[in-house]
Amino acid sequence: MEKVNFAEKLGLFDDRWAPKIVAQMNDVHFKLAKVEGSFVWHEHGDTDEVFIVVDGTLCIEFEDQTVTLETGEMLVVPKGTRHRPYAEATCSILLVEPTGVVNTGDGGHDEQEVVDGRREARTAANDMWI
Amino acid sequence: MEKVNFAEKLGLFDDRWAPKIVAQMNDVHFKLAKVEGSFVWHEHGDTDEVFIVVDGTLCIEFEDQTVTLETGEMLVVPKGTRHRPYAEATCSILLVEPTGVVNTGDGGHDEQEVVDGRREARTAANDMWI
Repeated sequence: MEKVNFAEKLGLFDDRWAPKIVAQMNDVHFKLAKVEGSFVWHEHGDTDEVFIVVDGTLCIEFEDQTVTLETGEMLVVPKGTRHRPYAEATCSILLVEPTGVVNTGDGGHDEQEVVDGRREARTAANDMWI
Repeated sequence: MEKVNFAEKLGLFDDRWAPKIVAQMNDVHFKLAKVEGSFVWHEHGDTDEVFIVVDGTLCIEFEDQTVTLETGEMLVVPKGTRHRPYAEATCSILLVEPTGVVNTGDGGHDEQEVVDGRREARTAANDMWI
């Protein structure tokens, strides 16, 4: 039984939009991620998704509003709700969602974003432990 | 869709060992609690349980070791594992567990602890939203 120290785990990687599993409770995964810039519009048809901000500011855009989360705040995105997370500066988040969830949902596994003039894939491996 | 600010929610109550639900993801509850002193020895036979320390120091005693969690640390207590949480000073925690879990597990719903010379019940209502 090993505890998880968020800061320590966050010090082990630096890639963006690539959640790493740090713990499992029953069939639920806890994943740390660093995010910066824009993610793709997507939805998860069969599950809610939890965002907890560990350090920084995360915006989540919905079709009718944008919710801004600061450190120590969380949001449950209900299943089937289209959303697009983005962060103007590096932000560290804890995601809580069932095992097996693909980060881009229905957003297309080949979906890419333009980052610094390059096109980058957003779909991450969903079984990466750290 | 409303975000949850942990500090704001924690400012709304002051009782100890009485988790309040702040969010639900599928069939999983997120509960904030303030703890101080000792809880009862217990186990949950059918589910893991997650402790995340929001502010303070939480100790969790097991039959063969004690794990100390500081702010920004989490632990998954596997199902069927006897444990006893305690905190020397007030500590704020976020619990993550399936809906319907009784906080004292198999520890007896009439189980009481001696607090300042009084006997206090430890079993809390498990459907208290805040």
